[in-house]
Amino acid sequence: MACDEGLIGFAVTNSEAIMVPTFSRLAMLGSNPIAISMPAKPYPFFFDASTTVVTRGKLEVYNKNGKPLPEGWALDKNGKGSSDAADVLKNIVAKNGGGIMPLGGEFEQSGGHKGYGYGMICEIFSSILSMGITSNHTHIGGKGGTCHGFCAIDPKIFGDPCKIEEHLSTFLQELRDAPKAEGATRIYTHGEKEIIAYADRMENGIDVNVNTVIEMVDFCKFVGLDVEEYLGKLDLESAKNSSSYN
Amino acid sequence: MACDEGLIGFAVTNSEAIMVPTFSRLAMLGSNPIAISMPAKPYPFFFDASTTVVTRGKLEVYNKNGKPLPEGWALDKNGKGSSDAADVLKNIVAKNGGGIMPLGGEFEQSGGHKGYGYGMICEIFSSILSMGITSNHTHIGGKGGTCHGFCAIDPKIFGDPCKIEEHLSTFLQELRDAPKAEGATRIYTHGEKEIIAYADRMENGIDVNVNTVIEMVDFCKFVGLDVEEYLGKLDLESAKNSSSYN
Repeated sequence: MACDEGLIGFAVTNSEAIMVPTFSRLAMLGSNPIAISMPAKPYPFFFDASTTVVTRGKLEVYNKNGKPLPEGWALDKNGKGSSDAADVLKNIVAKNGGGIMPLGGEFEQSGGHKGYGYGMICEIFSSILSMGITSNHTHIGGKGGTCHGFCAIDPKIFGDPCKIEEHLSTFLQELRDAPKAEGATRIYTHGEKEIIAYADRMENGIDVNVNTVIEMVDFCKFVGLDVEEYLGKLDLESAKNSSSYN
Repeated sequence: MACDEGLIGFAVTNSEAIMVPTFSRLAMLGSNPIAISMPAKPYPFFFDASTTVVTRGKLEVYNKNGKPLPEGWALDKNGKGSSDAADVLKNIVAKNGGGIMPLGGEFEQSGGHKGYGYGMICEIFSSILSMGITSNHTHIGGKGGTCHGFCAIDPKIFGDPCKIEEHLSTFLQELRDAPKAEGATRIYTHGEKEIIAYADRMENGIDVNVNTVIEMVDFCKFVGLDVEEYLGKLDLESAKNSSSYN
């Protein structure tokens, strides 16, 4: 919204605790994403990323597909690396210990304390300044309690907004034009992949994991909706043989 | 300075290009640190970290000690992982390609595109808004050109600053008190290690790498200073047998 008005947008939110701080074995911070957008041509800079290595949703996808988690993503209840998505997800909900690593991984050598620091920045601008509930106290006893922070900055404070936008656009184009790594064919700027994906999904629809469709059908039954009235006849049995449902 | 006045401090700077964006083989962004401080008891939250896995200084230390770099830090001129500190440093200066990985590492699987994104945030608030020189254009033809950005935010805008400080202090204490990972004995909050190190250095002095002392002596000779007038008699020959000089 800020970007559409020619402003720099900044948004943060804390969440149920899933990030285990460096040297701990208990999730104390949320996935705590930080998002920043800024007008540019041909499309804006649009960065929106959790301060954990991956989000909880990614673990759920691995769990639904019955795949082991890659190394460097998650910790078991003792604070040791784990590839068992189902176990990690169960422990997060039960607050048994374990969770997802901060961006940078488990140890200081690869910069895990930095991801933990970015998670703290998110916490400051969501739960701390608002006197709200920090991630480690949300989602207890059936309550939510997550906090958000929003800010819009007018580039006009700093100079001519058109020139500033042009300056950013030039740098973004230089990044896309930079020499590629061996085996790589394209360098993306932040937000570019989402624009490509959006166009593709509008054209070709969205592939949905079969287990997610089954969940959606169950939810519809639970709230008394006739799902086939909206989506047409679903053939979930034969879909189970492929990995996704379009 | 902001923190001493009861404010939230924010500071960024770009630098000579050393960070290789995801899928590139050329350094396009600097180490691009983001620093945020906020008043708390018994000591402030004080986060100051490069958006690369490590800083260039760390590579220089490994180079001086003749040690191979850990996996996941640096890239050679083709954009492939490298453990050769001397080669990586030489390529950065010559702008031959290669450099240091963004926080999160080489690939998207471990979140390297996120470190690249944080580096971009730094660039926006240093070189872009000021219409200055982006990292990839600094330090060319004997010119510097790095840009900085500073901001101070008064917590009073959001509520009672004393209560907000207490709220942050409580959360920081909860983090320090959280259960430790197997084999870990202490969880740090950001800025705590620096306070401990400062007290230790004031008491016990600073260990300096012998090669750094030799460099300092050379610099002193270059500018016509008698180093022994300031530091007393230096016994560099016997110091070479130990790894550092106090």
